[in-house]
Amino acid sequence: MAQFDLPLEALREYRSDSPEPDGFDAHWARTIAAARAHDVILERRPVETGLSAVDTWDVRFAGFDGHPIAAWWTVPRHRRAHRGVVVEYLGYGRGRGLPHERLLWSAAGYAHLLMDSRGQGGQHGNGGDTVDPVGTPPSATGFVTRGIADPAEHYYRRLVADAVRAVDAARALNGEADAPVVVSGNSQGGALALAAGGLVPDVSAVLAGVPFLCHPRRALMITEASPWSEVVNYLSVHRDAVDVALGTLDFVDGVNFARRGRAPLHASVGLRDTVCPPSTVFAAFNAWGEHAEAAVDREIEVYPFNHHEGGDAVHTRRQLDWLAGVLGGL
Amino acid sequence: MAQFDLPLEALREYRSDSPEPDGFDAHWARTIAAARAHDVILERRPVETGLSAVDTWDVRFAGFDGHPIAAWWTVPRHRRAHRGVVVEYLGYGRGRGLPHERLLWSAAGYAHLLMDSRGQGGQHGNGGDTVDPVGTPPSATGFVTRGIADPAEHYYRRLVADAVRAVDAARALNGEADAPVVVSGNSQGGALALAAGGLVPDVSAVLAGVPFLCHPRRALMITEASPWSEVVNYLSVHRDAVDVALGTLDFVDGVNFARRGRAPLHASVGLRDTVCPPSTVFAAFNAWGEHAEAAVDREIEVYPFNHHEGGDAVHTRRQLDWLAGVLGGL
Amino acid sequence: MAQFDLPLEALREYRSDSPEPDGFDAHWARTIAAARAHDVILERRPVETGLSAVDTWDVRFAGFDGHPIAAWWTVPRHRRAHRGVVVEYLGYGRGRGLPHERLLWSAAGYAHLLMDSRGQGGQHGNGGDTVDPVGTPPSATGFVTRGIADPAEHYYRRLVADAVRAVDAARALNGEADAPVVVSGNSQGGALALAAGGLVPDVSAVLAGVPFLCHPRRALMITEASPWSEVVNYLSVHRDAVDVALGTLDFVDGVNFARRGRAPLHASVGLRDTVCPPSTVFAAFNAWGEHAEAAVDREIEVYPFNHHEGGDAVHTRRQLDWLAGVLGGL
Amino acid sequence: MAQFDLPLEALREYRSDSPEPDGFDAHWARTIAAARAHDVILERRPVETGLSAVDTWDVRFAGFDGHPIAAWWTVPRHRRAHRGVVVEYLGYGRGRGLPHERLLWSAAGYAHLLMDSRGQGGQHGNGGDTVDPVGTPPSATGFVTRGIADPAEHYYRRLVADAVRAVDAARALNGEADAPVVVSGNSQGGALALAAGGLVPDVSAVLAGVPFLCHPRRALMITEASPWSEVVNYLSVHRDAVDVALGTLDFVDGVNFARRGRAPLHASVGLRDTVCPPSTVFAAFNAWGEHAEAAVDREIEVYPFNHHEGGDAVHTRRQLDWLAGVLGGL
Amino acid sequence: MAQFDLPLEALREYRSDSPEPDGFDAHWARTIAAARAHDVILERRPVETGLSAVDTWDVRFAGFDGHPIAAWWTVPRHRRAHRGVVVEYLGYGRGRGLPHERLLWSAAGYAHLLMDSRGQGGQHGNGGDTVDPVGTPPSATGFVTRGIADPAEHYYRRLVADAVRAVDAARALNGEADAPVVVSGNSQGGALALAAGGLVPDVSAVLAGVPFLCHPRRALMITEASPWSEVVNYLSVHRDAVDVALGTLDFVDGVNFARRGRAPLHASVGLRDTVCPPSTVFAAFNAWGEHAEAAVDREIEVYPFNHHEGGDAVHTRRQLDWLAGVLGGL
Amino acid sequence: MAQFDLPLEALREYRSDSPEPDGFDAHWARTIAAARAHDVILERRPVETGLSAVDTWDVRFAGFDGHPIAAWWTVPRHRRAHRGVVVEYLGYGRGRGLPHERLLWSAAGYAHLLMDSRGQGGQHGNGGDTVDPVGTPPSATGFVTRGIADPAEHYYRRLVADAVRAVDAARALNGEADAPVVVSGNSQGGALALAAGGLVPDVSAVLAGVPFLCHPRRALMITEASPWSEVVNYLSVHRDAVDVALGTLDFVDGVNFARRGRAPLHASVGLRDTVCPPSTVFAAFNAWGEHAEAAVDREIEVYPFNHHEGGDAVHTRRQLDWLAGVLGGL
Repeated sequence: MAQFDLPLEALREYRSDSPEPDGFDAHWARTIAAARAHDVILERRPVETGLSAVDTWDVRFAGFDGHPIAAWWTVPRHRRAHRGVVVEYLGYGRGRGLPHERLLWSAAGYAHLLMDSRGQGGQHGNGGDTVDPVGTPPSATGFVTRGIADPAEHYYRRLVADAVRAVDAARALNGEADAPVVVSGNSQGGALALAAGGLVPDVSAVLAGVPFLCHPRRALMITEASPWSEVVNYLSVHRDAVDVALGTLDFVDGVNFARRGRAPLHASVGLRDTVCPPSTVFAAFNAWGEHAEAAVDREIEVYPFNHHEGGDAVHTRRQLDWLAGVLGGL
Repeated sequence: MAQFDLPLEALREYRSDSPEPDGFDAHWARTIAAARAHDVILERRPVETGLSAVDTWDVRFAGFDGHPIAAWWTVPRHRRAHRGVVVEYLGYGRGRGLPHERLLWSAAGYAHLLMDSRGQGGQHGNGGDTVDPVGTPPSATGFVTRGIADPAEHYYRRLVADAVRAVDAARALNGEADAPVVVSGNSQGGALALAAGGLVPDVSAVLAGVPFLCHPRRALMITEASPWSEVVNYLSVHRDAVDVALGTLDFVDGVNFARRGRAPLHASVGLRDTVCPPSTVFAAFNAWGEHAEAAVDREIEVYPFNHHEGGDAVHTRRQLDWLAGVLGGL
Repeated sequence: MAQFDLPLEALREYRSDSPEPDGFDAHWARTIAAARAHDVILERRPVETGLSAVDTWDVRFAGFDGHPIAAWWTVPRHRRAHRGVVVEYLGYGRGRGLPHERLLWSAAGYAHLLMDSRGQGGQHGNGGDTVDPVGTPPSATGFVTRGIADPAEHYYRRLVADAVRAVDAARALNGEADAPVVVSGNSQGGALALAAGGLVPDVSAVLAGVPFLCHPRRALMITEASPWSEVVNYLSVHRDAVDVALGTLDFVDGVNFARRGRAPLHASVGLRDTVCPPSTVFAAFNAWGEHAEAAVDREIEVYPFNHHEGGDAVHTRRQLDWLAGVLGGL
Repeated sequence: MAQFDLPLEALREYRSDSPEPDGFDAHWARTIAAARAHDVILERRPVETGLSAVDTWDVRFAGFDGHPIAAWWTVPRHRRAHRGVVVEYLGYGRGRGLPHERLLWSAAGYAHLLMDSRGQGGQHGNGGDTVDPVGTPPSATGFVTRGIADPAEHYYRRLVADAVRAVDAARALNGEADAPVVVSGNSQGGALALAAGGLVPDVSAVLAGVPFLCHPRRALMITEASPWSEVVNYLSVHRDAVDVALGTLDFVDGVNFARRGRAPLHASVGLRDTVCPPSTVFAAFNAWGEHAEAAVDREIEVYPFNHHEGGDAVHTRRQLDWLAGVLGGL
Repeated sequence: MAQFDLPLEALREYRSDSPEPDGFDAHWARTIAAARAHDVILERRPVETGLSAVDTWDVRFAGFDGHPIAAWWTVPRHRRAHRGVVVEYLGYGRGRGLPHERLLWSAAGYAHLLMDSRGQGGQHGNGGDTVDPVGTPPSATGFVTRGIADPAEHYYRRLVADAVRAVDAARALNGEADAPVVVSGNSQGGALALAAGGLVPDVSAVLAGVPFLCHPRRALMITEASPWSEVVNYLSVHRDAVDVALGTLDFVDGVNFARRGRAPLHASVGLRDTVCPPSTVFAAFNAWGEHAEAAVDREIEVYPFNHHEGGDAVHTRRQLDWLAGVLGGL
Repeated sequence: MAQFDLPLEALREYRSDSPEPDGFDAHWARTIAAARAHDVILERRPVETGLSAVDTWDVRFAGFDGHPIAAWWTVPRHRRAHRGVVVEYLGYGRGRGLPHERLLWSAAGYAHLLMDSRGQGGQHGNGGDTVDPVGTPPSATGFVTRGIADPAEHYYRRLVADAVRAVDAARALNGEADAPVVVSGNSQGGALALAAGGLVPDVSAVLAGVPFLCHPRRALMITEASPWSEVVNYLSVHRDAVDVALGTLDFVDGVNFARRGRAPLHASVGLRDTVCPPSTVFAAFNAWGEHAEAAVDREIEVYPFNHHEGGDAVHTRRQLDWLAGVLGGL
């Protein structure tokens, strides 16, 4: 689709007008505290990957409510100095797959934790390994509307809690108390990076590519692309649930996480992206660090001719360079 | 799509070549026994429907593992003689909706139990009210692949058990020990009618319109229409799980239920139906009553120019007439 | 499609700027007078429906120019007090089908006349029984452009006249002089309900769900969804006929009928409906009763996440309740 | 779509197995005799076309039942010797348009009669000018199912009669008693050329490009492309009308006309054509002249990589050359 | 797509805001001078067309850099007075095909040169005969992005130079020094007509139907229809090449050619055309003759219900009449 | 699309019936000899990739006719023992992109040469850097039909020659005379791996995932998926060129290369792949090594539920393991 959202100049100034839900901070504090009541590393097992450049472990860490969450922990075999840890979250529908799939961060010298997405993994790629042990109220297909009638029951409450715990797990696995931890991801992964960046005050950097789940009230007005279509579908059936469902989505709105960000942010946006419409991405980007006492660095790469694929490898190279700059003399 | 399956003459002789899975009867006996360990009626509450011709109750009955399953129980206000009870199951993605939506059976003088489908209801229509309290292993979107790695964990094990318990619930609600009970439905509802007809020896008739879930091994070779696409998708990702997943589907293959049918069957098929391909429907139809000692009546209406919509109201009229004949002097 | 029309606040104020065609009232007065020159009931024959709750007659009444129009006349078998009569018009492409298809109004205690749509019935559902005996000038496929070069020859002139005569037929069949008569329908049926409501001064209520044919000059600018596509197609071929064709459509513009409404109106709109775009529905709704001396009650249900399916059974329940309120102590 | 029908070798031998309907010859004899009861030329009026190479008249001739049918009669301004007359029929949905649209035959030295298709003209091109004065029973959109419940009422009975009368009109307009008359057309036009070739014993040649309406019983099994979709749609609604409708189509089956052909035939087929599937074209081609006492010349151009567009201008050149050969020393 | 661009009133005033690239005139002067260094007619060979109304030659003329460009040169056999020459350019993807395909201009008494498009011809119609001897840098499929990284290497530089040389060739072939030459075409052909009209000061008239390649910077914001999609695709991959590529397109922007037009212009636009969006067409139309000392006649036919097909034969008739008026007493 | 080709058992036996073109070996010997007349390495320049695990050089080597072909040469920074060299070819439409995109082979300890595809790179991914300096005869969009009228001019002649020279380049870059060289790729890359495997007698192994360009005569009968659609399109326009074009494709038919293979082959196929239909893949696989004196090892992974994506990372893992086994104690 051609450029369908606001002009770039307007995007650069765009602000969400959705009010923050009451009890946002308490909701997340409670959620994270409950998750942290469990020991974070449940299991770690070395795996043979067929690769000589890295060592990989198959990990289970305790996510939301202590549920076991699968992850790959991969460390460059030859790193001498710790360059830091990159915690990576996945796009919608995809599982962590196989440990030789995502070699960028380890090749660049970082330790790498790739978090599986509970219940997901059957749509693309090479599968997932994490059960979502919570039941399903009546919902549209997919994950976005599961439990949407109540912020406490919403699927993304659990997934965001997992993402926060992935940072804890990475620190535990890495074993260096002060190693920088970076959270990163694209699309749903970008949403989780924003969320972890907002909820974990001391990550060192946030890489959010074409982040999903930002400013849902606007997204639902201007797009029906999947997975927003799940919400449209749900509310086309549950016609009386509009306010409740939008109220639940407010609790996982990337804008609200962004306001609480304190680490430097590197983001991206495709101006023809109907999945993560530009104005929703800018709504989060422009709000980043709003609650911080001091100015927070943020940078966004704009891809005017791209749809949801965004900047792809052109962008990952920019991430590598930006991150090297942010993390300094590693 | 034009007629893409076997010619009609071949369909009339078509037989599934899939072997029955070991332990099929034991699996279902165990499942149903466990479900029947719970009192069947959990709650019944009269509802105001805005209608003067019927009385309706909002019911919760104990399904698989005692899970509460919603249903509408509707009785013609003016029936003098009991004509029998029709237990109806829903198509995929649709919930029980509102009690004034399906008035055919009550207008025809039957008591009517409309069973909700756990977790479903967000795709079409007017919503559902039943939680599926079991968690979700990695799966494709939708319900067909949930727990597909294990017959014991498969979503349709639970839904079929609910369908069996709906018969128990209808009998309890109706209160007449010997009233005839008919199971019915289209598509997924037809699959559940076949299942209930196979697992409950003493229902009085089975109405299975364009039934889904028959002969999945063949269906998956000749169609990728939704919801078969869910399995295709899942197995395109979980490339090593083909045998396991097909093995699980064998436990809910309509052909296997059909073999155990003992009540008269009235079925339908659309010869252009890619959702429930003709050969899969005939595979079940032709197997109906195979295990019975005596011949079992069965009849199928063939709609040569129809797709998945099948016979629609033309067919419901044929069902009314056929059922009146089968149930005799009601 | 996402919300593509005006924002809801603007819709609530939206007014059509299309001038009324000269001779609008004379055109319709002439048309109706000519139709009323024929005896209204041509034939009524009881039919066996397989149902015990209702009695149904297969009716032919005299529509436009006395042409025989098929209808089902259905009366609850057990109604004691007359609750009124609901005259129902059908959506585009669908015929009256079979008499057991639409049981809502009779189950709610109303007598029910379901009018067939001349020539239609071959697209969905279960068929129609009414010939349109008038020939076809060069036109696009479908019915909207038949005779569009002349208001006197236009298909919808005939269909609207039929709709008016359906009210006459319902009164004749009901036989109670002062029973309230309600006109109702969705989409094309909603257009006909608006038309009958504007042309028959003394109906008791109008139920117009997602009405078609409102403010065609705007609709043709913002949508090409079927059946508007028929007009787009016709005018893409007959490039010199734009003014003439739009001039003909003015004579069946729901806005012009709405201005003449005097009965209470209950309407609905889906904010994502490209078939009956929100601004065209609101153009009619906001004009309702404009020509009346006193204020006319009107109410509209807005479904923000629905497309052309609108409110479905959620809406029918709201109609039942609203109608009970309007018709009072029935 | 790739090659979806029989292999070419099988096509070359392919025969329809549909029996001829009883009374086929009587039906058409009656139809044509009735049409010929009217004077053929109703009106002829010279038109200014902006062209210097041709003279054109706007003609109305008496078609089925004497209904006025529009046509363009175009004669090369500079022809010295009469090369013959080409009567051309149009593809589905298109009207005769404007007289400067089809200049091939006049540029090649032929007189040219282009027959409008009654009621059509609103789908493509530049419009039509012929009313179909007969009314419409319940039917799908389009023309194929109008009156399909009765061979006497079927739209194509009228159109075929018009096509026969176009030959009469061409002869009357041309004024040379023994000038050769050729009938030609593509798709629907090809169907009409076959029909006229079968019903008018003394045309000099038949040019049938990718002819429609051949062997409908097979076409409806293997394709749902438009306009066959109209029949599929109609029969998906009128589920009890299958035998009647197919019986009506038998009366306009190109195979039956082909059997009666006596003039040389030049045909074409695209092996990827889903509108006029190869086996249906070959069914007619292979039957051409079957009832003749002597062998009848026939030739078919096979376009293995073409869909319904067939041979386009490559084919028209082949037609020009073949026709020059057939008509001899013109 | 419904009317998606500016309202007609705004279109009538619409102006491109893209600055002209530096060196525009020099670039084209250099290009044309280099092309004119070669003798224009390389080869002319009479062809047998099967037609009696015209004489046709198969021509090769020297285009860009002297590359041989194929064309059909067709002259009415019976013209007495020279009516002028029409040079016609083709739409995208189509080659010159066969010489009997386009008979309008010769039938109207004009000599006609139909220029082939280098490298094109494999998408529609009946083929082309002209090699583009220049190699291909990395590019999207199609022709629009070939060499887009450099105005000197861009495919359309070559094609525009060919179009200019076609005028030279027509003059040489015609042999009458002062015969009027008209340039014409639709879509890509319209773009080339605008270009030739801007670069050849003394053509007598320009016919540009729904011209492509106007105001590309705007087109790329509001549409992704093919062939604009080629640029979108290219820039979605070559993310750093946006400025360079748009800068190259400026050199073939129809608006810049239009400013230099001096001959009367007859244009057309479809208000629903996503290939050549209305505002881009009006941007060129409104700029026509801007650099001329005196007012230049221009006329545009607006087709409000047409997409890219525009006015078709209705428009060609208007072209015939307008051109007869402009060229005067021919 | 569901399984649309032959059943798996038939595929395992499937053989192409296309005869080899005369002069196949001479054609390729000549082509390669001419290419080898140029020094292979034209340029090598270290590049900064942002990665610490590898060293990468930007290479230009001499391909067909000495044309400069871009490639990335990447070597694990920490490899001690040479594990061999993997030469990788790209899928259709994609360029070599950026050097950090494909890290699998270097992470597994192999040196890695990634060859760019001349002229391609503008459809997906992150771009290419190689000009195809040869001009374009009239062709469909894309590369498959460029020069298809002559095996000597065909685009794939050049690309296959480049692929052979990439092996030469890898050997030159690697500098170890006897290091094993493996050719690999998916889709178009798989086609090139088969070609290089057939034309270079001494590669050590061939990895061909879902290879394109096998048995084109069959592919064109059973699929029109892109890029086969390019040929269909071309031949639908150039209706007289069928034999010539198919004759050219015979020279790049993977089956003919396969017959000449001598190294062990590891292949894959998706049974629902319409781009590289199973029977065409098996035609090549089953022919592998046919001309060899001794049996040649070959293995194929069958993915029954996959389309063109094939085995993805599941397959790459199988490749890693198989290759380690074949190359032995590395």
